[in-house]
Amino acid sequence: MVYLMDKIKEVMEKIGALDQESMRLARERQDTLTKPQRSLGILEDLSVKVAGITGNFMPEVKDKVIITMAGDHGAAVSAYPQEVTPQMVYNFLRGGAGINVLARHIGARVVVVDMGVAADIEPHQNLVVKKIAYGTANMTGGPAMSYEDAKKSIEAGIEVLESEIEKGVDIVGTGDMGIGNTTPSSAVVSFMTGQEVEKVTGRGTGLDDEGLERKMGVIKRALEVNKPNREDAIDILAKIGGFEIGGMAGVMLAAASRKIPVVIDGFISGAAALIAYDLKPMVKDYLIASHLSVESGHRAILDYIGLEPLFDLKMRLGEGTGAAIAMGIVEASCKILQEMATFEEAGVAEKEGKG
Amino acid sequence: MVYLMDKIKEVMEKIGALDQESMRLARERQDTLTKPQRSLGILEDLSVKVAGITGNFMPEVKDKVIITMAGDHGAAVSAYPQEVTPQMVYNFLRGGAGINVLARHIGARVVVVDMGVAADIEPHQNLVVKKIAYGTANMTGGPAMSYEDAKKSIEAGIEVLESEIEKGVDIVGTGDMGIGNTTPSSAVVSFMTGQEVEKVTGRGTGLDDEGLERKMGVIKRALEVNKPNREDAIDILAKIGGFEIGGMAGVMLAAASRKIPVVIDGFISGAAALIAYDLKPMVKDYLIASHLSVESGHRAILDYIGLEPLFDLKMRLGEGTGAAIAMGIVEASCKILQEMATFEEAGVAEKEGKG
Repeated sequence: MVYLMDKIKEVMEKIGALDQESMRLARERQDTLTKPQRSLGILEDLSVKVAGITGNFMPEVKDKVIITMAGDHGAAVSAYPQEVTPQMVYNFLRGGAGINVLARHIGARVVVVDMGVAADIEPHQNLVVKKIAYGTANMTGGPAMSYEDAKKSIEAGIEVLESEIEKGVDIVGTGDMGIGNTTPSSAVVSFMTGQEVEKVTGRGTGLDDEGLERKMGVIKRALEVNKPNREDAIDILAKIGGFEIGGMAGVMLAAASRKIPVVIDGFISGAAALIAYDLKPMVKDYLIASHLSVESGHRAILDYIGLEPLFDLKMRLGEGTGAAIAMGIVEASCKILQEMATFEEAGVAEKEGKG
Repeated sequence: MVYLMDKIKEVMEKIGALDQESMRLARERQDTLTKPQRSLGILEDLSVKVAGITGNFMPEVKDKVIITMAGDHGAAVSAYPQEVTPQMVYNFLRGGAGINVLARHIGARVVVVDMGVAADIEPHQNLVVKKIAYGTANMTGGPAMSYEDAKKSIEAGIEVLESEIEKGVDIVGTGDMGIGNTTPSSAVVSFMTGQEVEKVTGRGTGLDDEGLERKMGVIKRALEVNKPNREDAIDILAKIGGFEIGGMAGVMLAAASRKIPVVIDGFISGAAALIAYDLKPMVKDYLIASHLSVESGHRAILDYIGLEPLFDLKMRLGEGTGAAIAMGIVEASCKILQEMATFEEAGVAEKEGKG
């Protein structure tokens, strides 16, 4: 078990500061391109951020990967039955889900990971099996998982990212699937950001008022019963988290350690980002927030970490769907940096005076 | 000249209401796809809107066109010299500008139109020449153009769109290039929306405080000198508009008459949208607002017409750059509608009860 801790630690220690020189060169180049300086706004900033992450002042975003992690939850409060988790995993593997459509649209591959679905999934070439258990335990009666399993889930995420690197990864997006996984996510968000349960608990896939009440009750009970240690993110993950949440945190840490930008999706990815950020605050510099989810509590996550979402399309599907759209925008930003002509190349006159 | 008026009138009369049945069928299909209902938010709404526009409940957005219209301005107040307009047109034709990069990224073709550049542009296969004049007249001393030329500019936009239809157009985006064209645009926006000049006049490509003062002075003078007729959008265009503004208004009207969705870009496209909307309010239903521009006054346009932008990336370049990014999102929304599996197809259980 020392080995496991070492693996997470090792990855954490490899995460360094952004490459300031690459960022300076990227900004300098942006300022020579045939457009008024800064007129592409956040598109320019994104390209500079990716330059800093990758250490390349003209980074290429070609190999795009969405890692969609699935898990089940012992304390799920959802409008859908738990059997939907494996059914949706099959849907992912057949290419029929929202994330498949959007990933194809931007030319990304989808890697589906069974982190802890409460059913066996038939083997498939696009399925990575990292099953920690058949769903978490009910966190209203004790921890959702053991401390060891929490570490294992993060480590599994690290392994998934690292084995994808062999196939090529210029940018990675995180996504989730797990009926009821807004329940542990809201618990994690409330506990870690200090916001009231009422403020960060939403309707998930579409709970009615009674369901929402029940969900908040479950979260409060889980927090009371487990009393997580605020100084130990792995303890928090173990007591009130989920396997896919730990897995995505592992993906984020591993990507940051390998200088790969990570586009985070919505609320569940955000809960994972909180865990990763708590373990290693510098991971923040490697994260790109895609959208602002409809799920209440998502804003609290982004504010806590200090990230601004690129857009708000009132989405709340998860799976990595917001990340996929954002990834297309990040790729565009890097193409601007690479492909646009400079004033000199195009023979275009520059701004008059300093006006 | 009766012919010209007839052409604009003919197009206006062809613009009809959205196809409610296609919208109903599109919404119905969205509700059967493997996701919680409405969980893709505005992506779903976009696909339903495109269904209504095209009269097809599963519309395909394949042939994508950005029409970038260039013109010069007699009353330009800009940080850049006027020679930049033709220089940028050559940059467009060589593929080195921001719009070229973003259009390639989403797989759209760029049609560059000389609506009234104050220089001759060498012939090029991708250049459409609809030059009304070598720039508008200085609107502080009288109308920017004659009433006839205002009609001609709208008609030219109609012709450009119609000849593109022969090559295939599933969706069109508008873009602009013209040094100083935020000056007439702010005049149009102030006059048409009733907002104060100070509120809707921004720094354009980067004016300093003195330049901004001067620009507002020019706009106020032009409004005083010309006294446009609020009841006649063509008179407004003639007195305080520009050739590319009229051209883009023509593109919007023609596209709407042919049931083609139009993605509008930022501030200058917005001024054109005001003209088109005033001529035929129903054109609004065919417009998709891409982004919220940094240019002050853009929000006033969108509020006046009643459109919500898809994103705000602090852009202010024009050329159609915001429209290109939005077009990728609109295409994604229609792919969702077309390609996602239904609950039945995927064998996924639906929501429990009505919760």
